[in-house]
Amino acid sequence: MSKFIDRMAANNAQNGFYGQDILSVSQFGRADLDYIFTVAHEMRVLVERFGSADLLHGKLLANLFYEPSTRTSASFMAAMQRLGGQVIPINGVQYSSVSKGESLPDTVRTLESYADLIVLRHPEVGSAAIAAQYCAKPIINAGDGVGEHPTQALLDLFTIVEELGDVTGKKIIMVGDLKFGRTVHSLTKLLVNYDVEFTFVSPDILRMPQDVLDVVKAAGKQATITEDVHNCIADADVLYVTRVQKERFADLAVYDNLKDRYVVDPALMGHAKPNMIVMHPLPRVNEISYAVDSDPRAAYFRQMRNGMYVRMALLAAVLGKA
Amino acid sequence: MSKFIDRMAANNAQNGFYGQDILSVSQFGRADLDYIFTVAHEMRVLVERFGSADLLHGKLLANLFYEPSTRTSASFMAAMQRLGGQVIPINGVQYSSVSKGESLPDTVRTLESYADLIVLRHPEVGSAAIAAQYCAKPIINAGDGVGEHPTQALLDLFTIVEELGDVTGKKIIMVGDLKFGRTVHSLTKLLVNYDVEFTFVSPDILRMPQDVLDVVKAAGKQATITEDVHNCIADADVLYVTRVQKERFADLAVYDNLKDRYVVDPALMGHAKPNMIVMHPLPRVNEISYAVDSDPRAAYFRQMRNGMYVRMALLAAVLGKA
Amino acid sequence: MSKFIDRMAANNAQNGFYGQDILSVSQFGRADLDYIFTVAHEMRVLVERFGSADLLHGKLLANLFYEPSTRTSASFMAAMQRLGGQVIPINGVQYSSVSKGESLPDTVRTLESYADLIVLRHPEVGSAAIAAQYCAKPIINAGDGVGEHPTQALLDLFTIVEELGDVTGKKIIMVGDLKFGRTVHSLTKLLVNYDVEFTFVSPDILRMPQDVLDVVKAAGKQATITEDVHNCIADADVLYVTRVQKERFADLAVYDNLKDRYVVDPALMGHAKPNMIVMHPLPRVNEISYAVDSDPRAAYFRQMRNGMYVRMALLAAVLGKA
Repeated sequence: MSKFIDRMAANNAQNGFYGQDILSVSQFGRADLDYIFTVAHEMRVLVERFGSADLLHGKLLANLFYEPSTRTSASFMAAMQRLGGQVIPINGVQYSSVSKGESLPDTVRTLESYADLIVLRHPEVGSAAIAAQYCAKPIINAGDGVGEHPTQALLDLFTIVEELGDVTGKKIIMVGDLKFGRTVHSLTKLLVNYDVEFTFVSPDILRMPQDVLDVVKAAGKQATITEDVHNCIADADVLYVTRVQKERFADLAVYDNLKDRYVVDPALMGHAKPNMIVMHPLPRVNEISYAVDSDPRAAYFRQMRNGMYVRMALLAAVLGKA
Repeated sequence: MSKFIDRMAANNAQNGFYGQDILSVSQFGRADLDYIFTVAHEMRVLVERFGSADLLHGKLLANLFYEPSTRTSASFMAAMQRLGGQVIPINGVQYSSVSKGESLPDTVRTLESYADLIVLRHPEVGSAAIAAQYCAKPIINAGDGVGEHPTQALLDLFTIVEELGDVTGKKIIMVGDLKFGRTVHSLTKLLVNYDVEFTFVSPDILRMPQDVLDVVKAAGKQATITEDVHNCIADADVLYVTRVQKERFADLAVYDNLKDRYVVDPALMGHAKPNMIVMHPLPRVNEISYAVDSDPRAAYFRQMRNGMYVRMALLAAVLGKA
Repeated sequence: MSKFIDRMAANNAQNGFYGQDILSVSQFGRADLDYIFTVAHEMRVLVERFGSADLLHGKLLANLFYEPSTRTSASFMAAMQRLGGQVIPINGVQYSSVSKGESLPDTVRTLESYADLIVLRHPEVGSAAIAAQYCAKPIINAGDGVGEHPTQALLDLFTIVEELGDVTGKKIIMVGDLKFGRTVHSLTKLLVNYDVEFTFVSPDILRMPQDVLDVVKAAGKQATITEDVHNCIADADVLYVTRVQKERFADLAVYDNLKDRYVVDPALMGHAKPNMIVMHPLPRVNEISYAVDSDPRAAYFRQMRNGMYVRMALLAAVLGKA
């Protein structure tokens, strides 16, 4: 493993994340993304060859989840443990005295007494930034309500890099609920760092918000807005799917009319390029048919695994061991 | 510890469990049982001498419990940790987004992205088999409703082996609720691999089901059915006790008449052989009196400990390290 | 680290805690306190220099919490993990089959089959002592209702030692709810081992109970009882704050009249000595103003950290590795 350790040491020399909080995708410029993805790729190779390493042996992560999120929580736990670190899982804080009256700042100041860094999931926008103000140890934002979930956006982008080799020149379709879907907003803000073309596919009432469209425009990228995925599927390199929720529609007739146009099934896949990829942040309900799972272009479970690699890279970077 | 490691390596050469799922006792023939019990005994010696080992260092277990079972969950965690591995505990899934709409196959495919194997407790019969179909990593069934709980049956049988030296020629009494008690069904199916005699003691309405009796008959083993434990206690090598639940009786007068005949107390133990053993899957309520706990023949807490050894053996075998 | 290991070995020779239960502050004489605090200080140095050690590598702690207490639970987990040990967290037992009918003795006898020691939090007074009767492995009481919480009292006293260098000759003010506050009772009982002066500040209806005052008197220590913290703040070396709860007052006018007299704010701190310390068991609500947090005399977050060091010392001592 000495070759890996050497490469990690070389990576670390470029590491600007040591001791820093990870709060927002807006912290990540192109050089930061390149750095994190280089380390994440090393983590992938490390796990595929050796399963785990002892890079973070003796380090402790407090995994503080004010709302349940099995997927994200388990991904951070696995990332820390595969690097030899240990985890204090704090789930279901709502049942505990910590939540009865104690302020978030006091809770994080208590936990930083015990742990080397804190991963925080909290239902309120801005909570991670508030926690970070009071905490001397690094905070990683694992989702603050309708605010940010930066590690999700990073793993989405990393998946494109790993699957397609490069982001440059790619045609990205985002389909489904683009209004309320936090993941597509954050991913779009990261993708404008690259030379890409966007197509935003949604029912009119679930259109991509103007502020995100403004970011795309300011970066000089091209974006097409449409209601029909069939028009654009043939050119896509990436089809990023999110769920259209029935409860968003006042008029259910509108929903019933639209819903089948946004289901990814083998028929739709038949129109796509052989080397495109289908992504989804999961959990899915029925917006991607199970028959697509065996298609090699179905990247969503590999995307989950990439989440672990990206979180391994961030944990190592923040603790100065990448 | 090198002697242990050598013996482990020798054991491993006979290991047919590497990468396999553990779903049902019906997977285990006599040679498999001999193999697992040999390894489980090694694990016992290892824990008694050294406390733990680093055999599974760097390996991750996802402990996925859809319903609470502190005993089984803690036993698997301890087994993994005593072998140097780490655990992602996923309890109370009912409170989490994972359970809201996401299918079991999607959940296990997500978790196999993070972990090296999955232990699954789920309330529905057949769920472990379904999970295993979708999961490339090994699944260990830790109870699927009224279906199977194979590690319980294995630890029960291992306890007989460890306590009595051998199973051959032993007289096994099972007493209590033989109709609904999953553990006695599974244990009986394993015991027919050996030359044993059964006595099934229960109220008539809680008799051993016909399909289990058919297995006994097909294997050419002798089984006596009775309502009175006093008639057979003197000859018993093993007295396996399960709880008779009041709520199973429509006529409470029947229950009141019967209940004391199935309580194991010092008076009953006075009629038993000096080297017989009393077993119970726990938790007990009042079917074994606390006064029996100090009797050296009370094997039920040692049985708990054997559960850890058997699970250590299975984890090591499935991960190719036994 | 060899110097540390040598010092640990030397400490261990004086260790009377090996294999013992930690149930009550009444177990701790002056020599025991000196021993535990010496080891806790070593743990502090160890964490500050190395982060963690492998002293308890391969050891398992069952962290059994019948009621939630994120702070105490996380502190014990961190203490065990920083010493290289592993933890089986058992939270929310109320939702599990363990609690439905199974007795505490049976539960701890099951858990001692898996783990090397048990930390127990239970809502009933005396539960830790009952558990210890049935358990061959050490039990550490992490709070038994209105009974004892000995590790809290030890960390409080250790904080005075670490912050002020010595306890001898110190003037200790305890302020707030002295009637129902378990922590101030236990701390007082430990402090009478030293040459100290007490001032107990509370509303009359929340006075320090007579049995605690009797302990102070029997030890020949001086205690002043008052309702006003302003009278005594100038001389204090330690100001130990607990919360006055509105719900303790039948007449809310009495509460409204008193409540501001017990809030520690910068104005009050202006009257205190430059090297005094403010302590609080946390969580706080509003009895210490946030503006005090940046005052170097605010010791309550360092107190949290000391909790981890004291628990590391106890875990190591009980497992014979201090």
